Amino acid sequence: MSCNGHRGQMLNIKIICVGKLKEKFYIDAANEYIKRLSGYCKLEVMELPEDYQQSLIKEKVQIESKIPDGAMTVALCIEGREFDSKELSALLQDSAVKGISKICFIIGGSVGLHDDLKRNANIRFSMSKLTFPHNLARVMLLEQLYRALNISGGGKYHK
Amino acid sequence: MSCNGHRGQMLNIKIICVGKLKEKFYIDAANEYIKRLSGYCKLEVMELPEDYQQSLIKEKVQIESKIPDGAMTVALCIEGREFDSKELSALLQDSAVKGISKICFIIGGSVGLHDDLKRNANIRFSMSKLTFPHNLARVMLLEQLYRALNISGGGKYHK
Repeated sequence: MSCNGHRGQMLNIKIICVGKLKEKFYIDAANEYIKRLSGYCKLEVMELPEDYQQSLIKEKVQIESKIPDGAMTVALCIEGREFDSKELSALLQDSAVKGISKICFIIGGSVGLHDDLKRNANIRFSMSKLTFPHNLARVMLLEQLYRALNISGGGKYHK
Repeated sequence: MSCNGHRGQMLNIKIICVGKLKEKFYIDAANEYIKRLSGYCKLEVMELPEDYQQSLIKEKVQIESKIPDGAMTVALCIEGREFDSKELSALLQDSAVKGISKICFIIGGSVGLHDDLKRNANIRFSMSKLTFPHNLARVMLLEQLYRALNISGGGKYHK
């Protein structure tokens, strides 16, 4: 049921998020999908503090230092490509087949991501034309990752 | 700060949802946005039970009977039109200006909505190409309605 790479290793997914989840309901929702994802991938969710005084360029440097070596990077941005759930699943599965064992998603804070991060990312991914707050976006991404890996694992979650 | 119609009345928004929220975190998240929306519109969220044995046509009849007379209907479906948050805000504001004081959103259950409901709706609205579960979709819609009415009210929530 797991999404395995060419040597059979489990996919490593890291999500770098700018901004902490404050609302208990978003923390609980995120934790629910993190728990469910544990059967499908090695997942790390890293929160970087959002510093409202700080420039996006400083944030960019911090984020870049946290991207695992050799990871495929996926920057979430509203102007990115919209995938449907099956396409997202295929993207993860294809990466695994190609021997890419690390994928790093990047979710910006309330003012988004520095242009360099978007430009340098392997993929720019838009979940919606609508603007969602970073906390809800994180839950949406986690649910979609669970859905994507469930699809590629042959599960029945996605109908 | 409210979105008023031509006679100055508050916009009436009804959301008809198939399926109950079970997870406490989704109930709490929905309630948070319902509370915030109370300053902007008259909101009713009506849950219809999802009957997995029941055909979509029976569900359709139930839903139709709950649509308020004279309401503009917005069916949520993945193949609908994607609005950005400002366009959604403009849609609500334009409706109010045109004297439409009632808007009814319809969110289907796990198997979606009957084709007639989508065909007969004034607007088919897609929040994303991605498939989201009905419970998360409800939270997303509530957040977007809050965002939309905050935009038209001149608030600072949307950046």
